[in-house]
Amino acid sequence: MNSGRSPLRVVVWGEARHEKVEPKVAAIYPDGMHHTIKAGIEEYLGDSATVTTATLDDPEHGLSEARLQGTDVLVWWGHMAHDQVADAVVERLHRQVLDGMGLVVLHSGHWSKIFVKLMGTTCTLRWRSEHDRELIWTVDPTHPIAQGVPHPIIIPEQEMYGEQFDIPAPDELIFISSFSGGEVFRSGCTFRRGNGRIFYFSPGDQDYPVYHHPDVRRVIANGVAWARSDRAARETPTLLRYDTGAFYSGQGYAGALVR
Amino acid sequence: MNSGRSPLRVVVWGEARHEKVEPKVAAIYPDGMHHTIKAGIEEYLGDSATVTTATLDDPEHGLSEARLQGTDVLVWWGHMAHDQVADAVVERLHRQVLDGMGLVVLHSGHWSKIFVKLMGTTCTLRWRSEHDRELIWTVDPTHPIAQGVPHPIIIPEQEMYGEQFDIPAPDELIFISSFSGGEVFRSGCTFRRGNGRIFYFSPGDQDYPVYHHPDVRRVIANGVAWARSDRAARETPTLLRYDTGAFYSGQGYAGALVR
Amino acid sequence: MNSGRSPLRVVVWGEARHEKVEPKVAAIYPDGMHHTIKAGIEEYLGDSATVTTATLDDPEHGLSEARLQGTDVLVWWGHMAHDQVADAVVERLHRQVLDGMGLVVLHSGHWSKIFVKLMGTTCTLRWRSEHDRELIWTVDPTHPIAQGVPHPIIIPEQEMYGEQFDIPAPDELIFISSFSGGEVFRSGCTFRRGNGRIFYFSPGDQDYPVYHHPDVRRVIANGVAWARSDRAARETPTLLRYDTGAFYSGQGYAGALVR
Amino acid sequence: MNSGRSPLRVVVWGEARHEKVEPKVAAIYPDGMHHTIKAGIEEYLGDSATVTTATLDDPEHGLSEARLQGTDVLVWWGHMAHDQVADAVVERLHRQVLDGMGLVVLHSGHWSKIFVKLMGTTCTLRWRSEHDRELIWTVDPTHPIAQGVPHPIIIPEQEMYGEQFDIPAPDELIFISSFSGGEVFRSGCTFRRGNGRIFYFSPGDQDYPVYHHPDVRRVIANGVAWARSDRAARETPTLLRYDTGAFYSGQGYAGALVR
Repeated sequence: MNSGRSPLRVVVWGEARHEKVEPKVAAIYPDGMHHTIKAGIEEYLGDSATVTTATLDDPEHGLSEARLQGTDVLVWWGHMAHDQVADAVVERLHRQVLDGMGLVVLHSGHWSKIFVKLMGTTCTLRWRSEHDRELIWTVDPTHPIAQGVPHPIIIPEQEMYGEQFDIPAPDELIFISSFSGGEVFRSGCTFRRGNGRIFYFSPGDQDYPVYHHPDVRRVIANGVAWARSDRAARETPTLLRYDTGAFYSGQGYAGALVR
Repeated sequence: MNSGRSPLRVVVWGEARHEKVEPKVAAIYPDGMHHTIKAGIEEYLGDSATVTTATLDDPEHGLSEARLQGTDVLVWWGHMAHDQVADAVVERLHRQVLDGMGLVVLHSGHWSKIFVKLMGTTCTLRWRSEHDRELIWTVDPTHPIAQGVPHPIIIPEQEMYGEQFDIPAPDELIFISSFSGGEVFRSGCTFRRGNGRIFYFSPGDQDYPVYHHPDVRRVIANGVAWARSDRAARETPTLLRYDTGAFYSGQGYAGALVR
Repeated sequence: MNSGRSPLRVVVWGEARHEKVEPKVAAIYPDGMHHTIKAGIEEYLGDSATVTTATLDDPEHGLSEARLQGTDVLVWWGHMAHDQVADAVVERLHRQVLDGMGLVVLHSGHWSKIFVKLMGTTCTLRWRSEHDRELIWTVDPTHPIAQGVPHPIIIPEQEMYGEQFDIPAPDELIFISSFSGGEVFRSGCTFRRGNGRIFYFSPGDQDYPVYHHPDVRRVIANGVAWARSDRAARETPTLLRYDTGAFYSGQGYAGALVR
Repeated sequence: MNSGRSPLRVVVWGEARHEKVEPKVAAIYPDGMHHTIKAGIEEYLGDSATVTTATLDDPEHGLSEARLQGTDVLVWWGHMAHDQVADAVVERLHRQVLDGMGLVVLHSGHWSKIFVKLMGTTCTLRWRSEHDRELIWTVDPTHPIAQGVPHPIIIPEQEMYGEQFDIPAPDELIFISSFSGGEVFRSGCTFRRGNGRIFYFSPGDQDYPVYHHPDVRRVIANGVAWARSDRAARETPTLLRYDTGAFYSGQGYAGALVR
């Protein structure tokens, strides 16, 4: 169904703060984490995608209305500065996702304003950053996001994220991770909200070189390709009144007391 | 498992505005819609429940922190005044649901602030108030909420609510309705959010005597009984750090840069 | 992700009995229903698919092991002769689906041996063939199978299929139908089983020209494209023993008492 | 809703072979595994349940039609002799579950004929019996089956069961386990099939004293209570024809060519 489609327009959004204040992080990601994530997507999607970046410190965080309308899939990494993302931009993102923009949320993005708003829950979890080994097991072998990676994916060192992860039951559970310490986590989940598709993938932390890992990069690229809408155009779900038999011609809402 | 449990504490919240400004509605519900809904729950749950009411015009909308902590299940009916529900109360409700309070949302409550916040979507739909007949078909015959009602439930006159209903895919789809005009609607849906259980049930409108219908009352009573938490106590899902092997002793979050 | 893929190999299986014994059916489908279904798929998938047919009266019902191994997606229409499908062929089909072959089951195929075996339930429903109008409503607007069709699809005359439809809760519910008589039906459902994807779509009956309907043809073509596996090769899910740390090298089962 | 219900009639079915041929197993379960499982259920359900046992070597495996009709919930443990369970009894069990009998399948019962038939998949997995520690994490804190147990449940020594577990996506995923070796498993899953409820719970092996573990016993007791049908009577899902408007009076199927 995808043959002949125009290139997928991807924006990788990075908070880009840890790299500035922590030499350890800058050493792992000298160009910034968002550029490493971008390179991973390009590595697998090649000419079928055009990938750009945006960061917290850009005007409007690099996420103007016009730019979002030209974005098929937004990838999100944030951590220490979730609360500095402007509420107006969060509202804009929320509307774009419900209209059909794809969203891939990575790792600590579980606590971003946009993900929490889309989920409706606290999105909390248990964690520990102590060099656990993470194993990522595929539980849905039919899913396009799970293609091309070993079972399990092995990440030598990672932050631990463990259950309970306070999210709605995902529409599709693709990956479950375990950690050396014995914890488990629903590490790859999809959600449909409005006309948009959302993929959450937990691996990735500023303290470990996880976004250099080929399998992690492959999953993110798969997720980006999957999150792209098949719909012809963006459209806001809207409450409309329909006369009997007039299935295709809805009328705008005029208030609760108007007949 | 429920034997010997203390009575279920239910609060029926009613907006209670249509009854005041529309004689037609007052004629159908002379005591207010919330009192009719309350009576329906009492009819089926009897001594196993204590049911009280609260309305928009009560101080704090009748939903103080103390009262909510003593409420096992909240039933919600609102329509023309959704925007007059104070945001602070919505935040309070949201937290209580995530902590474990049950929530039953009726009909036009699909567009209430609390339901929209919990769902993360627009919760829009198509509608028409033209005396359609509604048939409610059970698609999950094993569900406790579906017990004791005919297949289908027949409501002679009702407002039409039709797809697309912009909600997350429900955890359980119990009822699907059709209307004379040919529309369909996912009319009975459950959602788990945090430690709380949510049941949405669409029948019921201020213009028709739907809450006097015995089968509708039965479903609402079933839904109230189902929404009660089995957990021993309210608890807020919280992000905590756990040392390796210390599975039961989490530590509070101290910030993204603290190690 | 699908760019550059080899053509999708589709087999449309038709029971091809009604056409032979009922002139009315032969008048609607002079080439056989399977050829009309084939033409509909070709109409939308064009060069990206090669579509052939097989029927009940072919040797091995046209479904030899070799042919199935070269089939990406099998489309199934059967009705009056479900019990004449050989059990050995059903076993073969079952294994192929679990290994990764896509399966699209149409209409009365709900009661075919292969669908019943895959579902594990009775797959029964309520029905009536009395020229009801069917309306097919999309409830998952993000799904690739729902693209390119109006909301609702209108079928002027159809057999009624109504709930309760005794199937497992589908992995994805895409379409819900209503009928003039007021019944509803989960008419478009997906299921993942083993490494295979299954799409059930209920419209289509031998007594009405449903497979000439452009929107029905479009949905079937979408379903065929969706059901194709993304996996590199067919693979039977197998019980294997793994030594500690030997994540990628399983050993065959040697019996319950062997250590 | 359960107040005043008659005692829950439970049958624990045990294969009861390992205890006879392996002294090691007999030492752990001197009365047979089924009696230990029975005692665990009685410990938590007390007078609200009457629990009996049946075994493979009983006439009809102890599962006559009459006995099953008087059984609310059947608990199943089998392993080395799955193939000795008579097909006629499996058919009988299958029908009873679809009619409304609850079924709790334990551990190696994943490969029993009845579970495989209900699931429609191979139900295979990866395994290793090497004294792994199993941790059982709750991912659905609202579920009645998850009440009263720590998070995680710790089983000092257990057989490892790992993904991929070839089952349909469960209706509810309650528990996920990890093992010392790093594997994960969907260890607590529910499925609704026909009018019946099914709970699969993986802990428990003949080589370890898992059914003496208080938390495992609690989960099994919770699962038994949950699996009991809320329906008034057993009923086989049946294909029926309904005239227009005659919603409650279906007619039996008379064949595909009869009008």
